[in-house]
Amino acid sequence: MNFHYPNGKRYIPKTAALKTNSIKNKNDSYSNRGMTLEEDLNLTNEYYRENNIAIIHKKPTPVQIVHVEYPKRSAAVIKEAYFKQASTTDYNGVYKGKYIDFEAKETKLSQSFPLKNFHEHQIKHISSVLKQNGISFVILRFTITEDIYLLEGDKLLTFWNRMLDGGRKSITIDEIKQYGHSISVGYHPRLDYIKVIEKIYSFN
Amino acid sequence: MNFHYPNGKRYIPKTAALKTNSIKNKNDSYSNRGMTLEEDLNLTNEYYRENNIAIIHKKPTPVQIVHVEYPKRSAAVIKEAYFKQASTTDYNGVYKGKYIDFEAKETKLSQSFPLKNFHEHQIKHISSVLKQNGISFVILRFTITEDIYLLEGDKLLTFWNRMLDGGRKSITIDEIKQYGHSISVGYHPRLDYIKVIEKIYSFN
Repeated sequence: MNFHYPNGKRYIPKTAALKTNSIKNKNDSYSNRGMTLEEDLNLTNEYYRENNIAIIHKKPTPVQIVHVEYPKRSAAVIKEAYFKQASTTDYNGVYKGKYIDFEAKETKLSQSFPLKNFHEHQIKHISSVLKQNGISFVILRFTITEDIYLLEGDKLLTFWNRMLDGGRKSITIDEIKQYGHSISVGYHPRLDYIKVIEKIYSFN
Repeated sequence: MNFHYPNGKRYIPKTAALKTNSIKNKNDSYSNRGMTLEEDLNLTNEYYRENNIAIIHKKPTPVQIVHVEYPKRSAAVIKEAYFKQASTTDYNGVYKGKYIDFEAKETKLSQSFPLKNFHEHQIKHISSVLKQNGISFVILRFTITEDIYLLEGDKLLTFWNRMLDGGRKSITIDEIKQYGHSISVGYHPRLDYIKVIEKIYSFN
């Protein structure tokens, strides 16, 4: 029952992901077992919430609802709807009073991360969040090597603007290593990105 | 093409709301013209975003997608989906670096605001946000009088706990006037709740 967005990204129903990857599952191992970045982040955010470390949620998939039916004695059924492009990044929430906002993306390439993974309105949103002194970043995963990096929003904007100025349409792996921060894959939490932002930003 | 949630709340497609109530419309007047609280807040947040005052969005309606079809040469169509109960409040974002989180509710009553308007998981979310030092509140609207109040999250929790302890299942209008903060309806922005939170909370 997996289907794909127009952009080729696999859609994973939330409940299915939770059932398969419950953090109570004793068979969990440190290996990544083919989990997507989204599944790893959902587990991580669940861990953060349950332990009052941070309250961060993935936003629901935006859907344009066109037709709904109301069968007697059962729940309303949406019979026609379309995927809409999100106007923000996918994840946001609060850590120590501060606003946290990020987007997570994967690539099958190994030497660079294509900027076409981001939409212009997401870049605009990141820019707006930075102007409001929010904490904004992206989490980039290289599926082949399973390497994961956190790249701060202002750095992403620099690479985006280089592209707009006629420069390369991707960020090289060397640039990501130089300007980004490696996130190691653990058990609980899976991807401890809060540990990274705790080092980068100052919290009262 | 209006339909209703199981809870009786009218569902307003976003694009329709934007078209009808564009803030560029010269025929706009100060009167409320039957706008819902959600429409007013969408216009307010749009105004805040366009003027870099705050970056606050309404979260998409959570939908459980069951079946999608992929017609040739056209967009994917969701053919079966169901409304899900939200696990958070509807609105969140950033103001001066701080995390802002709120829920907006209306009542047709005039003497009290029923607590059944809130779900237990929303109360839990509000409580979690407060523990992370986020700014959490609810916006309450009395549709008959068109009076609108901002009530801080911790005050809502006090009334909620009173109910759990066997007390009344609503907040009286006098209590809301005493503990809440009146929001006047204006033109741009429609409901200037940021002005209220600027008075309540301290910002660096």
